Amino acid sequence: MSERIKKVEQDFLAYTKKMEDYGQALSLLAWDARTGAPKKGIQQRSEVIGTLSSELFQLSTSEEMGSFLGELREEGAKEHLSEITRKSVEQCHKEFERNLKIPKDEYKEYVMLQSQSESIWEEAKDKADFEMFKPNLEKLVEFKKRFVGYLGHNGNPYNTLLDDYEPGVFVDTIDKVFGELRDQLIPLVKGVTESSHQPKTDFLFENFPREAQQALSKDILKEIGYDFGAGRLDETVHPFAIGINPNDVRVTTKYNEADFRVALFGTIHEGGHALYEQNISQDLIGTPLCNGTSMGIHESQSLFWEKFVGKNFGFWERNYDLLKKHSSGQFDDVSLEDFYFAVNQSKRSLIRIESDELTYCLHIILRYELEKALMQGDIEVRDLPGLWNEKMEEYLGIRPSHDGEGVLQDVHWSFGAFGYFPSYALGYIYSAQLKEALENDLPQFDELIRTGEYAPIQSWMTDNVHQFGKMKKPADIIKDTTGGGIDSKPLVRYLEEKYRRLYKL
Amino acid sequence: MSERIKKVEQDFLAYTKKMEDYGQALSLLAWDARTGAPKKGIQQRSEVIGTLSSELFQLSTSEEMGSFLGELREEGAKEHLSEITRKSVEQCHKEFERNLKIPKDEYKEYVMLQSQSESIWEEAKDKADFEMFKPNLEKLVEFKKRFVGYLGHNGNPYNTLLDDYEPGVFVDTIDKVFGELRDQLIPLVKGVTESSHQPKTDFLFENFPREAQQALSKDILKEIGYDFGAGRLDETVHPFAIGINPNDVRVTTKYNEADFRVALFGTIHEGGHALYEQNISQDLIGTPLCNGTSMGIHESQSLFWEKFVGKNFGFWERNYDLLKKHSSGQFDDVSLEDFYFAVNQSKRSLIRIESDELTYCLHIILRYELEKALMQGDIEVRDLPGLWNEKMEEYLGIRPSHDGEGVLQDVHWSFGAFGYFPSYALGYIYSAQLKEALENDLPQFDELIRTGEYAPIQSWMTDNVHQFGKMKKPADIIKDTTGGGIDSKPLVRYLEEKYRRLYKL
Repeated sequence: MSERIKKVEQDFLAYTKKMEDYGQALSLLAWDARTGAPKKGIQQRSEVIGTLSSELFQLSTSEEMGSFLGELREEGAKEHLSEITRKSVEQCHKEFERNLKIPKDEYKEYVMLQSQSESIWEEAKDKADFEMFKPNLEKLVEFKKRFVGYLGHNGNPYNTLLDDYEPGVFVDTIDKVFGELRDQLIPLVKGVTESSHQPKTDFLFENFPREAQQALSKDILKEIGYDFGAGRLDETVHPFAIGINPNDVRVTTKYNEADFRVALFGTIHEGGHALYEQNISQDLIGTPLCNGTSMGIHESQSLFWEKFVGKNFGFWERNYDLLKKHSSGQFDDVSLEDFYFAVNQSKRSLIRIESDELTYCLHIILRYELEKALMQGDIEVRDLPGLWNEKMEEYLGIRPSHDGEGVLQDVHWSFGAFGYFPSYALGYIYSAQLKEALENDLPQFDELIRTGEYAPIQSWMTDNVHQFGKMKKPADIIKDTTGGGIDSKPLVRYLEEKYRRLYKL
Repeated sequence: MSERIKKVEQDFLAYTKKMEDYGQALSLLAWDARTGAPKKGIQQRSEVIGTLSSELFQLSTSEEMGSFLGELREEGAKEHLSEITRKSVEQCHKEFERNLKIPKDEYKEYVMLQSQSESIWEEAKDKADFEMFKPNLEKLVEFKKRFVGYLGHNGNPYNTLLDDYEPGVFVDTIDKVFGELRDQLIPLVKGVTESSHQPKTDFLFENFPREAQQALSKDILKEIGYDFGAGRLDETVHPFAIGINPNDVRVTTKYNEADFRVALFGTIHEGGHALYEQNISQDLIGTPLCNGTSMGIHESQSLFWEKFVGKNFGFWERNYDLLKKHSSGQFDDVSLEDFYFAVNQSKRSLIRIESDELTYCLHIILRYELEKALMQGDIEVRDLPGLWNEKMEEYLGIRPSHDGEGVLQDVHWSFGAFGYFPSYALGYIYSAQLKEALENDLPQFDELIRTGEYAPIQSWMTDNVHQFGKMKKPADIIKDTTGGGIDSKPLVRYLEEKYRRLYKL
């Protein structure tokens, strides 16, 4: 028996290694398409991506895969397998089930609807015309409901959607932590908005040449420990980081000469994603476990570096001179304190992607509440614009003047990504929880940042989060580092303390 | 019958389209590995390339491919096929035969020997130690002879090797044109060397900053008609151009701050390759015919632009100011005539890749004569160093002081690429033949270059060479443009005229 299983295990690992190789090729094709690939090659490029993706899909749903999973998931087999194999089998099984339960023809129809909807959404957003997008959105919701029907659900249909992005995290947990967070944030945002103590910010918008920003971005990535021997920095329209494998993790950014914060904090954010992928255990290379474990944990890492490091006072005590060196003199008469207040300004915005760390989660909670109600059948697509505007007014005290800056602002729903939004706020919540846990072990956290000693911070994150890849579920990472569950209190503590101090509340 | 054939044709075209998509992914993976890919990712990258290559190999030798070829190559079938399909079938058949005739185990052994030999060659070259490399070179020659045995040959075993690089060109033709060329070049080189009229060249070696060279390279590529909407320019160690597909053709270059000619003429050279690939007919995309037809014709295009355009007096009448604009003043006191003479300097070199257009072909003819003799069994590997040095003395009048600057200088033999060298000289020969044919149609060639009107030249090349991809064999391109066969006289005429004038012979 065990001989036979060892052989099947080896064959399975070779098979998944091949799938990973396809995945790496696809990652490079996507990175290239989103950075410097020539425009005229776009059509050909999507055909190549289509061909390799469909090969990969076939590998993940083949009879051969089915037979591996059948043999390796038997009770008597598991005990003979390494932990990596066991978890790889579970990962493949999950995808196998998901891919086979949804009828192929329906899925194909859905993919066509997705790509059609994205371009309709774009036009509808530009014209602020919800009616134009509504029929497609209704169809997308119907598809998603039907898919949940095929896949089955645990308690709430929305749980099945969550599983794509935040495996092991369910509606009851999110309802609780989001509810608490919302109730704490609303009055704090109100206080900040009404405070008479507001930062000066004019110097943020003076011209900062592209080349200088590029050099600054590189210096800052090196500063926080990003390994350029295992990565590179490029320019793009919608910045992202991509882990082809832990030895090749690429960061992208964009430069706005009239607002250097876009590139600077954007680069630190993507750098945080990249540090995660660069520090996944090399043992996981070639397995299906060699990526971040969830959207939310990934976001916790980018936010940790962007917010807790990049917006830390000590970080600027150390790096303000570096910034001045790269800039054209606009900070020469600005005190460190004024600069720090300015980059930590909180200002209500109608637009999620323009909002700050204090208000961001309210944007997400609004979306979560709406999409959950949609999936539960409590509301209809036609109710969305009105409910959106009401909630904006209730949570942030501002109201969109049209749907282009309201319900139509995000791309996500246009490709059916329901269940995705919560991960953004979970990222904030995890991030603050991890920071408190880290400070238990490294109480000199602020001092380490002030002196640029990131190594102990880096090691802590690698030991507790990065190395595991998909070997650990999000909730287990939180439990093993904090001893408890997902909890919004650390985030609230951080925001209360910081913004009451900054805005003298 | 014809219904059935139409169906098979469609399936075959879908199958080769899939192969082409794999090929495009592989091209991108290779481009990336040779430009900006992070060093630490090299091992993973070669595994990904290995996986996709072996998939592609399997597709090219599968039973399915065999059955397509069987059905579509039947006499009754051919007449129902489009020309593109017919030629695609022949292309696939050629690869199918080649890949299946060589026993897999032997080929695997050979691939291992190749990669081992390349690193041994590198060390042997550095140490100028031929004995160190000899055993591997002997094994490589043995493999090649055996492979020729499996593949069969037409007249001369060397013809089978030529077929990999210059299909349809045979030893008897090459013997004739190379022989004539050699006999004309030797006295001309001697005359140039002994001439008392030599160019001043000190200004060529003054510092030319990298960024300025980069801007110059971009301007020059635009000048000659390279389409940046279907390509990009990057830096690398060993420059190359790569056609992923006609809408995505990338150029690479390298910058030497102490010798701007490396990047400038290197970029024009690779730009010439790129113009070829960018102008292959869009109808061939997704077929196995969508690349240059041979090494030699490809080289004819790079050389045409590098030599006949980039080293043309009119080109510098037009572009000398542009060069001066990008440089740091070193040309301010240099007359156009002196500059022109300097960049057209001919100087005997022991090293092929440092040699100029006048002496280059002699380096190639020497290699051709030696490798042909090896394959015919007329000489042994141990005879190479001595014969090399004798021929260098006879052809160029200089003698290597050690094998590092002699027989060990090129990488090609270390990976078994026998039959490759002739294409370089054929490129020169084709190039001059095409130029004479073009001047028949466009007698104002020099004037077009002086005024920067490249469009008619570009169109002529596209109509007569580029558009066909692999639809036309090299000899057919030459026949259809010149009305005759491969002929070294146009090249000799060009070199005689130019160098006698420059060196006042």
